[in-house]
Amino acid sequence: MYDVIVIGMGPAGMSAAIYAKRSGLNVLMLEKETPGGMVAKTNVVSNYLGYESLGGPELATKMFFHTQEQEVPYRMEEVEDIIVEDNKKIVVTTEEAYEAKAIIICGGRHPKKSNLENESDFIGKGVSYCAICDAPLYKDKIVAVLGGGNSAFEEGIYLAGFAKKVYILNRSDSIRADIVLQEKAKEKGNIEVLINTNAKKIISEKDVVKSIILEDDNKLDVDGVFVYVGYEPTTGYLSKLGILTEDNYIEVDSEMRTKIKGIYAAGDIIKKNLYQIVTATSEGAIAATTAKRDLKEL
Amino acid sequence: MYDVIVIGMGPAGMSAAIYAKRSGLNVLMLEKETPGGMVAKTNVVSNYLGYESLGGPELATKMFFHTQEQEVPYRMEEVEDIIVEDNKKIVVTTEEAYEAKAIIICGGRHPKKSNLENESDFIGKGVSYCAICDAPLYKDKIVAVLGGGNSAFEEGIYLAGFAKKVYILNRSDSIRADIVLQEKAKEKGNIEVLINTNAKKIISEKDVVKSIILEDDNKLDVDGVFVYVGYEPTTGYLSKLGILTEDNYIEVDSEMRTKIKGIYAAGDIIKKNLYQIVTATSEGAIAATTAKRDLKEL
Repeated sequence: MYDVIVIGMGPAGMSAAIYAKRSGLNVLMLEKETPGGMVAKTNVVSNYLGYESLGGPELATKMFFHTQEQEVPYRMEEVEDIIVEDNKKIVVTTEEAYEAKAIIICGGRHPKKSNLENESDFIGKGVSYCAICDAPLYKDKIVAVLGGGNSAFEEGIYLAGFAKKVYILNRSDSIRADIVLQEKAKEKGNIEVLINTNAKKIISEKDVVKSIILEDDNKLDVDGVFVYVGYEPTTGYLSKLGILTEDNYIEVDSEMRTKIKGIYAAGDIIKKNLYQIVTATSEGAIAATTAKRDLKEL
Repeated sequence: MYDVIVIGMGPAGMSAAIYAKRSGLNVLMLEKETPGGMVAKTNVVSNYLGYESLGGPELATKMFFHTQEQEVPYRMEEVEDIIVEDNKKIVVTTEEAYEAKAIIICGGRHPKKSNLENESDFIGKGVSYCAICDAPLYKDKIVAVLGGGNSAFEEGIYLAGFAKKVYILNRSDSIRADIVLQEKAKEKGNIEVLINTNAKKIISEKDVVKSIILEDDNKLDVDGVFVYVGYEPTTGYLSKLGILTEDNYIEVDSEMRTKIKGIYAAGDIIKKNLYQIVTATSEGAIAATTAKRDLKEL
C-alpha cells in the first residue's frame, strides 16, 4: 500500500509528489499522457519565476527530471475509478488497481470544443488544439485562432511566425488576454484581431479546409483553425464521489482537502480564481503537506 | 505615479512584479538588501519544481534576471513608511517618496534570535545566521546549530561538509524537519542531534567562542553557533496601518487583499500555514492579478 498516490503529472502533481517524497512518504505518480500536463502543450512560458521565457515542453521536461532526481516512481496509466473504503482508497487504472492511504488528484483540465458545428470532423485535418505541434503545417498559409484569452494570443503569436496571416476571433467585444500579449500581436504585423466574431461552420473541399462561415454568414478564407476557447476539468470518473462543483471542478478548502477524508486535489482541476503554473505548484505543495499532517491520524 | 509598487524582491515580490508588468501595469520594485530574500541566504533549494537541487543564491539570481528580462524597474532602498491617502498611497524610503495606486507588500521575514542570553555580543564573531556565508570559517572545527526545522537540518548538513562535528540542538523532543533531511543528517556521520536541549549562554576566551552552556548547566565545547530557531515578519513600519495579526504577520484574504483598499501582501510576511518558495510565487501572482482587476475600479 502506498502512502500517497498522485493522479496527474502536471505542475500540481509533480510538485505534490516532490513534497510528499521529501517528507518521507511512499508516493506513486500516475499519468495517462505526457508529464507536464498543459505546460507540455504550451508554446512559451514567460511567467514561471526563475525561468526567463522558455518552451513549454522544455519546462515540462525539467519538472519531470526534477521528480526523477528525487526518485519518485510513476506509471503511465489512465485512472478509471477511485474506490473509497474505510481505511484505504483504491485507484483503478486501465492496467491495475493500487491501494493508498491518501490520494492527491491533479488531473487538470482539457481544452473545450468551440461553437463550430463540424469541429470534430476536422480534428487533425485542419482543426488543431496545439499550435506548437501543428504550426509548421501552415507555413505561408492562413489560419484562424478561436478565442481571446492568453492562450489564444500566445498561440496566435507563435503561429504568426509560420503562417502568412493569422486571424484571432474573439466572440465578445472585450479581450481577456494580457496587454503585453495584445501589443506583441500588433507588432507581428500579420495578426488581425476580430472582435464580436463567432465561427459557426467549416467549409471544405475534398476534406481540405477552405474557409469558415461566421455567425453573420460572412465567409473567412482559412487553411486551418486553432481552438483556444477555454477548458473543462478532467473529472468524469469522479462524478459519483460527490466532491465536484456544479461546473465539474473539484471543491477544496484552503488546505486542498476535498469533502472526503484522505482525498486532496490541486492545480487546474480545482475551483479557484487563477489557473497558472505558479498557483498549481503551490497547491500541490500544500496538498502534500496537508496529507502528510493528516496521515498521522488516518 | 506608479500603478503598483512592490515592496520586497523575494520570490513573492518578483513573481508579483512579473505578473503586474505582463498585465500592462506600470510597476516599481523596492528592496533594502539583496534580490531573492531568504532564498539568497539558503544553501540548497531542492523543492522548487523545475529546478533540480541548486544553490539558493543561484536561484535568487535567476529570479532576478527573469524580472530584468521582463524589464521591471527596481530601486535598492529601504521603506520607512506608507502613507494612505484617498486615491493614492505614498511609499517613503530612505531616499525618496513614491506614489502609487496600489502597493503589494512582500517584505518577508527575518530570523529570530535564540534563547542565548549573549547572542548579540557574538554576531559575526562566532554567532551566524547564514551557513553558506560562514561555513568555511569552521573547517575542521566544532559547531552547534540551534533549531530543529528544515532550515536547521539543511544548514547543519551543509556545515557537516566543513566542520569536523556538528551538533543540532532541538529544544523539544519532536523534530519538525522533513524525514529525508533527518536521514541525510544521519548519513553524514559527523552530525549529532540532541533533543530536549536548550542553549542558554556562550562562553568565550578573549572574545573567541569556546563553548555553550545548556539549560541543564552542562557545557558543550563548540567553536561557533548557527541560529535557525524561527522567523519574525518584517512589519515594523506597518504597525500603525492596522493590517497585522497579533503576532505581527499581515492578514490577507484568499485574493491577497489586506483590510486597506489598494494594499495587498504576499509571501513570508502574510499569516498562513506553509512558508515555501512555491507558495510565495503563487501568492505574488495572485496579488498582482487581484490588483490589476481592482485597479479598474480604484
